[in-house]
Amino acid sequence: MFITLLTDFGLSDNFAGVVKGVIYAINPKVKIIDICHNIRPGDIFQAAFLLKSSYQYFPPGTIHLVVVDPGVGSKRRIIIAKTKRYYFIGPDNGVLSLALGTGDQVSNIVCLDNQNFFLKPVSHTFHGRDIFAPVAAYLSRGIDLVKFGRPQKKYREINFPQPRIISQAGKNRKALEGEIIYIDRFGNLITNISREAFEIFIAKKKFRISLGKKAINRISKNYLATGKNKPLAIFGSYGNLEISVSCGNASDYFGASKQAKLRVTA
Amino acid sequence: MFITLLTDFGLSDNFAGVVKGVIYAINPKVKIIDICHNIRPGDIFQAAFLLKSSYQYFPPGTIHLVVVDPGVGSKRRIIIAKTKRYYFIGPDNGVLSLALGTGDQVSNIVCLDNQNFFLKPVSHTFHGRDIFAPVAAYLSRGIDLVKFGRPQKKYREINFPQPRIISQAGKNRKALEGEIIYIDRFGNLITNISREAFEIFIAKKKFRISLGKKAINRISKNYLATGKNKPLAIFGSYGNLEISVSCGNASDYFGASKQAKLRVTA
Amino acid sequence: MFITLLTDFGLSDNFAGVVKGVIYAINPKVKIIDICHNIRPGDIFQAAFLLKSSYQYFPPGTIHLVVVDPGVGSKRRIIIAKTKRYYFIGPDNGVLSLALGTGDQVSNIVCLDNQNFFLKPVSHTFHGRDIFAPVAAYLSRGIDLVKFGRPQKKYREINFPQPRIISQAGKNRKALEGEIIYIDRFGNLITNISREAFEIFIAKKKFRISLGKKAINRISKNYLATGKNKPLAIFGSYGNLEISVSCGNASDYFGASKQAKLRVTA
Repeated sequence: MFITLLTDFGLSDNFAGVVKGVIYAINPKVKIIDICHNIRPGDIFQAAFLLKSSYQYFPPGTIHLVVVDPGVGSKRRIIIAKTKRYYFIGPDNGVLSLALGTGDQVSNIVCLDNQNFFLKPVSHTFHGRDIFAPVAAYLSRGIDLVKFGRPQKKYREINFPQPRIISQAGKNRKALEGEIIYIDRFGNLITNISREAFEIFIAKKKFRISLGKKAINRISKNYLATGKNKPLAIFGSYGNLEISVSCGNASDYFGASKQAKLRVTA
Repeated sequence: MFITLLTDFGLSDNFAGVVKGVIYAINPKVKIIDICHNIRPGDIFQAAFLLKSSYQYFPPGTIHLVVVDPGVGSKRRIIIAKTKRYYFIGPDNGVLSLALGTGDQVSNIVCLDNQNFFLKPVSHTFHGRDIFAPVAAYLSRGIDLVKFGRPQKKYREINFPQPRIISQAGKNRKALEGEIIYIDRFGNLITNISREAFEIFIAKKKFRISLGKKAINRISKNYLATGKNKPLAIFGSYGNLEISVSCGNASDYFGASKQAKLRVTA
Repeated sequence: MFITLLTDFGLSDNFAGVVKGVIYAINPKVKIIDICHNIRPGDIFQAAFLLKSSYQYFPPGTIHLVVVDPGVGSKRRIIIAKTKRYYFIGPDNGVLSLALGTGDQVSNIVCLDNQNFFLKPVSHTFHGRDIFAPVAAYLSRGIDLVKFGRPQKKYREINFPQPRIISQAGKNRKALEGEIIYIDRFGNLITNISREAFEIFIAKKKFRISLGKKAINRISKNYLATGKNKPLAIFGSYGNLEISVSCGNASDYFGASKQAKLRVTA
């Protein structure tokens, strides 16, 4: 049995280590895998995006534990959602919603309110240790989902902005406007434009992708397809259009940050 | 069997990985858990504080290995301490002392001098690899504590500064003066004032917590209890008084760093 | 069975976590150990150096997976090399060569081209997930090396610059000139001068090690052997001459970066 961790705990404190200690103390046989602990503090969107891009690669039955929880200690709910292949545990603040909304059908949701599975006393500030960890550990020991709390029908949703077709001032042709939703460590700019949306819009015509004052007019198949330090567009591992710089850092090159807009015209 | 690691190795080199390799080569069945590798180089206080706040969450029998060892290669001692529930291995520079001083009674201490358990040759600079790792691994295989060296009665102690009651210039009332002893990744300022010390001092009266030019006059139960970007005081997961900023970073907000003083008046 | 990971994925995205998910989904019994994920993006030299300094500490049979792969998606080859005690998987860009060139004899090399072991579809940008991870996992399940592709005789090599003996302008005596090849988290400057090369050159005479405008004329046995914040030379855990500062950071002290030259005269 596997438990993954996706948190904003960082790696400079003992938070992730203590959560693992609590889990292993309850279920010494489980295996814990870090997805990422460096989510920007409280950044629910970033965590939701990474969870959606990660969960399906893990063994069936894996419990995905997400602790990005700016409302810790307040009345916000914590939920466990069971899908066809996985379990998800997290605050009901939308952080699970992108994963739950993609393919792997949700069969049950429970609002975590049975305090018998919590460490005592429960602190006001570290529910990762006192609630999330022990609950994930007991769940991994095979305790039935219904024991953890009362059923709940829905989960809170967040949505990334969708790309949209817009008119351009003084021009006849419409444009597909998307935005940067994620920037990885290599500086690659991941957009919200899926391959499908892109292909439908350009309809096999010549196209132009504009970001800031720069434009790209072809899709590359790898990072070396243009000259060194030249920008390129590529469909990356998230399935979306990405803007990169060959052997370089597109975020630096374009001076672009999250939410920057880009346009496709054809 | 579990071995935890708490070091100042950082994550940009291969130090932690190599230590794990050495351990698994000797005991492939053990499980290794990272508590933290980002202790500030040589910061014995920070490591001692995190160890004290972590060790008790791990399964009984866990071996806690601490390598924050600015004296590596000199004549400083390395010790193994057995308590009721755990083992602790570290340089005898005080890094174990806050954990050993809290509750879980020390039953035996051994000064690590049996070189049969070391990797050969022992380098001058990486005892984590050449001494600590193999010793922890052999200990996890059940080798008797007394085999590792001669008994030792005491361990070197460090102490965090204690809060103290002080007179205030030109004022009648005394104040409880504490200080910031730790700052976490979220910028929360952890003080050395325990809940007990706080409650005894204020004796149910109205109070005022002063840090720099700002003051707080209530204890919050969660980070959302005040308005966004407003400061608050809370008893955090370490059991001590913490100063935070709702949805923000108290370290930035107050411009406060470790050892900054704060005052409680009632 | 063990698989190690050495990559430039960093720890701020989900790359390393997803690679682990893919591996565990194929072989839930394997143990995965992180050597380092913070290789500078695309820095083949740094990864090759750390691999060479790490691989031999792991249990025999360990599979060392290295993903530092600036040519991802292009026609570059991926290889699996079997040595007497280990397996190595990586792009054939030289990143494995320092490890393969040191002692543990290479018995077989295979060019990874059997796509049956890949995740489908293979992305253009994340072969760590789609090719390296599943191949390592299947290899750890005992699948025969020859199944993964056709045999290959050689692997691409890189070499660190070797120290050399040079004449000094206006001086009679020759010098041994080396350079800084690695800087660790503590700021220690690791040179390419091995203990053997050093000892042969100085031939038991008095010596002087010059770096920038500073000079050191003895070898220390530990970091405390000189006064606090004083520079020192030491043979470190990599087996080479290192320049350090007692209780300080030599990289800051000397303002030295990688490729900086240093001289030994005797």
